[in-house]
Order: sequence, then C-alpha cells, then structure tokens
Amino acid sequence: MTDQVILVVYDIKDNRLRFKVSNFLKKTGYVRVQKSVFVSPYNPAVLSDTEAGLRRITRENEGYDIQIYVFSQASYENRIVLSKGYYIEEEEEFLV
Amino acid sequence: MTDQVILVVYDIKDNRLRFKVSNFLKKTGYVRVQKSVFVSPYNPAVLSDTEAGLRRITRENEGYDIQIYVFSQASYENRIVLSKGYYIEEEEEFLV
Repeated sequence: MTDQVILVVYDIKDNRLRFKVSNFLKKTGYVRVQKSVFVSPYNPAVLSDTEAGLRRITRENEGYDIQIYVFSQASYENRIVLSKGYYIEEEEEFLV
Repeated sequence: MTDQVILVVYDIKDNRLRFKVSNFLKKTGYVRVQKSVFVSPYNPAVLSDTEAGLRRITRENEGYDIQIYVFSQASYENRIVLSKGYYIEEEEEFLV
C-alpha cells in the first residue's frame, strides 16, 4: 500500500462543534498542523473511522465545512511552509 | 506532466495580512474552498509565483502559518466533503 496521509481541514462557525471536532481528531491520533488542519498517516480503517465519526458529530449541526484529503506522503513531506511567530490557539474546553 | 493541484491553507492572526494573502491568492487565480483554504491547478510557474508572492507579502510580519501542498488531481477530486449551511465569510476589505 503506497505511503499516504489523511489531511483534514475545516471551517466551523459554532465553538462547541469546533471543539468536538478537534477533540475527536486528537483522540483519533491526528496531529494538529494548524488551528483547523490535522494530519494522520493513512490507512483504510482510520479514514472510515474519521468520516463516520465526523458525520456523527456534525449530524444535528449547520454552518460547517470539513474536507478530508488523502494524498501521498511525499506530497506532504514536500509541502512548502511559510511560518513565523505562530502558535496554535487551542479551543476553549467544552464538556462534551 | 501529471495532473496536480496546489492547495494553500493558512492561519493568520493579523486581519490586514490575512486580507493581503487572500487577495493575492484570488488575483493569482486560486479558487477559495474554505475561508482559509485556496486551490489552483498546478504548474511550475504558478507554484513559484505563489511562493515568491507569499514570501514578499509576509516578510515584515509575524503570527502566521501558511502551508502549500502539491498533490494529484485525483486526490483532490476524491476528497470527502462534509458541509451544511456553510458560507465563506469574506474578509473586511483593507486598502492594500
């Protein structure tokens, strides 16, 4: 199986939903690359768990867009990063 | 040359800088996928113009992280999208 990664990028209006999504992705083993961007090594089980989990979490909500990309490890490693004085603002905790 | 896309994702604290980046990407022909996610068909010239332009715009700034990915068109077309009641909040205009 080629080495691939899963990249999840999201824009979510509601704070509580945003916290649930980031919390779910962390618990699923994703690494946070930016505030709304998470990455994980790819395998079919992780991808299907990710999609199923995110569909369950977002079911009764609106005002969100979540995109799940699968592409080669090489594409990930060759990404160009412009970054200075950046820190990831973790969401306010919500009891979920 | 394989069909590829360029995906730019960013997290930028400063409103003026964020406007300059989104404005630059639009003018360079990128399509906005989410508030902080833009995509364009890949070709070497677009990639180098994008990197050079973003380096120039961000030079005297801090508090930003911009990631530029190149991956296959197939990976882009096969992405999983979970979206409901979503609209892209365009930035407040700044005279740049």
